[in-house]
Amino acid sequence: MPARLRIFSLNCWGIRHLSKHCAQRYAMIGDLLSKEQHDVAVLQEVWSEKDFLFLKKKLGGTHPYCHYFKSGFFGSGLAVFSKHRIHDTFLYKYTLNGYPYMAHHGDWFGGKAVGKILLNIDGLEVHVFVTHLHAEYSREQDSYLPHRVVQAWELQNFIRHTSAGADVVILGGDLNMHPTDLGIRLLQSYTELKDCFNETASFDGCEQGFTHITDNPFTHKQGLVPFGGGIRIDYIFFKGSEKAQVSCESLSTSKGPIPGQPFPYSDHETLSAELVLYPAKVEKGESKQEKVCTTEKLSELVNIVTEARTEVKVGLHCAERMRYTAARTGIMGLALLLLELAIAAVPCLALGTEQNFPKASFYLLGALCFSILFSTTLLYIFYGMEVRALQGAEDQMRLAVGSLQERLKEITNGASEERSQEKDHGDPHD
Amino acid sequence: MPARLRIFSLNCWGIRHLSKHCAQRYAMIGDLLSKEQHDVAVLQEVWSEKDFLFLKKKLGGTHPYCHYFKSGFFGSGLAVFSKHRIHDTFLYKYTLNGYPYMAHHGDWFGGKAVGKILLNIDGLEVHVFVTHLHAEYSREQDSYLPHRVVQAWELQNFIRHTSAGADVVILGGDLNMHPTDLGIRLLQSYTELKDCFNETASFDGCEQGFTHITDNPFTHKQGLVPFGGGIRIDYIFFKGSEKAQVSCESLSTSKGPIPGQPFPYSDHETLSAELVLYPAKVEKGESKQEKVCTTEKLSELVNIVTEARTEVKVGLHCAERMRYTAARTGIMGLALLLLELAIAAVPCLALGTEQNFPKASFYLLGALCFSILFSTTLLYIFYGMEVRALQGAEDQMRLAVGSLQERLKEITNGASEERSQEKDHGDPHD
Repeated sequence: MPARLRIFSLNCWGIRHLSKHCAQRYAMIGDLLSKEQHDVAVLQEVWSEKDFLFLKKKLGGTHPYCHYFKSGFFGSGLAVFSKHRIHDTFLYKYTLNGYPYMAHHGDWFGGKAVGKILLNIDGLEVHVFVTHLHAEYSREQDSYLPHRVVQAWELQNFIRHTSAGADVVILGGDLNMHPTDLGIRLLQSYTELKDCFNETASFDGCEQGFTHITDNPFTHKQGLVPFGGGIRIDYIFFKGSEKAQVSCESLSTSKGPIPGQPFPYSDHETLSAELVLYPAKVEKGESKQEKVCTTEKLSELVNIVTEARTEVKVGLHCAERMRYTAARTGIMGLALLLLELAIAAVPCLALGTEQNFPKASFYLLGALCFSILFSTTLLYIFYGMEVRALQGAEDQMRLAVGSLQERLKEITNGASEERSQEKDHGDPHD
Repeated sequence: MPARLRIFSLNCWGIRHLSKHCAQRYAMIGDLLSKEQHDVAVLQEVWSEKDFLFLKKKLGGTHPYCHYFKSGFFGSGLAVFSKHRIHDTFLYKYTLNGYPYMAHHGDWFGGKAVGKILLNIDGLEVHVFVTHLHAEYSREQDSYLPHRVVQAWELQNFIRHTSAGADVVILGGDLNMHPTDLGIRLLQSYTELKDCFNETASFDGCEQGFTHITDNPFTHKQGLVPFGGGIRIDYIFFKGSEKAQVSCESLSTSKGPIPGQPFPYSDHETLSAELVLYPAKVEKGESKQEKVCTTEKLSELVNIVTEARTEVKVGLHCAERMRYTAARTGIMGLALLLLELAIAAVPCLALGTEQNFPKASFYLLGALCFSILFSTTLLYIFYGMEVRALQGAEDQMRLAVGSLQERLKEITNGASEERSQEKDHGDPHD
C-alpha cells in the first residue's frame, strides 16, 4: 500500500491591525485545516506569534505537532502544523532581504528564511521545507531582483545540502516568482524538485494555477491585469529518492471568494496537493538514460547559474555605487562640520571683539551635519554587508559553474572514450 | 591502500594594521603551507581579502583550489586551501554574534559563520567544515556565553543536517571553548565527531594540546596563567561513515617560538593532523552494541541539551531586560522632548512679551532627546532580534529534547519487550 501525503500551503497575510479581517480569517483558516486534516500545513506570513498560538490551540486535536520559525525582528512568518511527529527543525535566514530604510515594504524586518522540518512517515524520512521570498513590488523596476535571486540560490543550496539523507523532499511556500523566472529555474534545475502544478494527475483551481488573482477582493487588481488576471507565485514542489517514488495525484487551489463565507482566507489562494509515496523500483538500463539526461541538464544548469551570476553582478554594481555614495555624503557631512567648527572658532579666538554670533543656526547646522554623519555611517556599514553578501554568492556561483563544467567535460570525455573503444572492438553492442 | 589526509588549522590573527607583524606572519604561513603541503588547510581570522589573495597567489602551485567565505561587514575571516578540487561550498552565518556597539570586541562586524566545502577524495565524499565562534573575553563574567552556546547549537545543527550524504566529515577551527565546555559537549554528543587530540595515535605539541599559550609572545599572559599556562580552544574533529572508517594517526601543534624565525605564525598555535581513511567493515554483533550505546548516549544528550537550554534561557532573560530598558529610556527621551517643546511653546504663544529665551540650551537639549530616541529605537530593534533568535534556539532545543526522549522511550520499550519475549521462549540465545 503506498502512503498518501496531503500537503497544504498558504500565505496567510497576517499583519495584525493592518491586514483586513485578520482575526476572522485566522478563524476560517483554523476551521479549514481542522476539517481538511492535511498531513502537513505550511503557512507563511503568520507574523504574530499570538496568531500562531491561536491556530496551535485550535488544531491541537488534528495537528498535535507544530513549529513556529523565529527570525528577524517580527519573525520569519513561517509556521508548520503536522499530524506526524516533528523530529527535527532547522532554519536558514537569507543573507539578503531588502533594506531596513524601506520600512513601508517591511521585508527586512521580517527576517525571511527557509525552515525545514523532519518527519518519519511509514519508515520514510520526509524533509519538508517552507519558505517565503522577498516580495516583488514592481516587475518593471524590480530593485530587489538581485536579492531574490540570491535568496533562490541560497534556497537551492540549503535544500541540496540538507536533504542528502531524505527519502522524500517537499517544499511549499510563497516564492514571489513566476514559473519561468530565473529563481524558479535555478531552484528546479539544481534540486530536481518537481512542480506539483506541472506533474499533477488532476487539477482543480484557478486558470493556469494562479494563486494571486483579481477575483480576490483583497488583491491590488491593477498590478495583476497585465498578467491575464492573476499570477502563480505560490508552489508545492516534491522529489522522491532511490527509496521512494513520489507522484502528485491531485492539486487544488481556492478561487477567490469562498462559498458561505464573507471573504477569502487571504489575499493569496490556498494550495492543496495529494502526494503518493511508493517504494521505488530501479528500471533496467536506467543508468544509461540518466547519463544522457545529465549532460543536457548540466549544460542547462551552467546557463542558468551564469544568468543568475549576471543578475548578482548587476546587484553588486548597484550596492557598490550606493556604498560609494554613502561614503561620499558622509565625508561631505564631516567637511561641513569641520568648516562650521572653524567658523565658530573665529569669534571665540578673537575674544576682544563683541560679535553677534548666530547660535541657533550654528546648532541647527551642527545637528544636521552630525545626523548626516551618523546615518551615512550606518548606511555604509549596511551596504558594505550587502556587497560582501553579493560577492559571496557570486563566488559560490563561479565555483559552481567551474565544478559543473568539469563534470560535463568528464562525462563528454568518458562518452567519447566509450565510443572509440566500441569502434576499436568493432562490436557496437558489446 | 588507505587514503591519507593531512589537515591544517590556524587562527591567523590577521587584523591588518592592528595585529603585530601581520604581513610577515602571512609570508611565514604561506611558506609553511607550501612546504608542508597539507591536503586541506582551514584558516580563521583572515580578515582582509588582500591577505587571502596573497596566500592564493603564493599557494597556487601546491593548493590550486581555495575559497574565501564572505559574510558580515569585514567578512567571516574563514578561508580554505585545498589540493583537491572544491566541488561545492555553503556558508551558514550564526544568528547571534555579540553586539554592534561593542565595537572594541569587533565580533559582530565579523559576521562569524561556519563554512563547508565538499571534496571528492579517492571516490569518498569528504565534507570539510571550518568555523570560528565568538571570543571569550572573560571566563568569570562571560556575557557572550548564551551567544556562544547558540552558535555551538547552530554549528551542530548545520553539520548534522548538511552531512547526511558524507563519507567523511572533518571540522577544524577556533571554537573559543575549552574541551569540557557545554558547547563542545553539545557539538560532540550530537554529531558524534571525534576530537583528534583524544583519538590520535601519536601527539607532538604543547602540554595538554594547548593552542593558546603563555610561551607565545603575542598572547596576553595574565589571562592564561590561571589555566596552567595555556588553553585548548582550537580543534580538528573527524567522523567516518558506513563507507569509510577514519582514524587519526598523528596530531601536532607548534609550541610558541619557531626555530629560525623571529616570531610565531600567530597568537594561536598551528594544528596539523594526519587522518587515515579506509573502507569500513561492519563487524558482527555491532548493531546490538550500538543499541546499548544509543540509550546511554541519548540520555547524555538529553542532559546536555537541557543544560544548553538553561543557558539560552538566561541569555533570553538578559536580552528581554535590555529590550525593556531600551524601550523605557526611549519613552523617557520622548517625554523630555515633548516637555521641552511645551516649554518652548509658552514664549511663542505669549507673543506680546519679550523674553530672554535660552536658545542654545534648547537646541542642545533637543539634540540630546532626539539622539536618545534614535539610539534607543535602534537598540530596541536589535534586542528584539536577539530575543527572537534566542527564543528560536530555545524552541528548537525543547523540540529536540522531546524527540530524544521519545526515541529513548521507544528503545527502552523495545528492549523490555525483547527481554519479555526471550523469557517467554525460554531461550535467551534465540
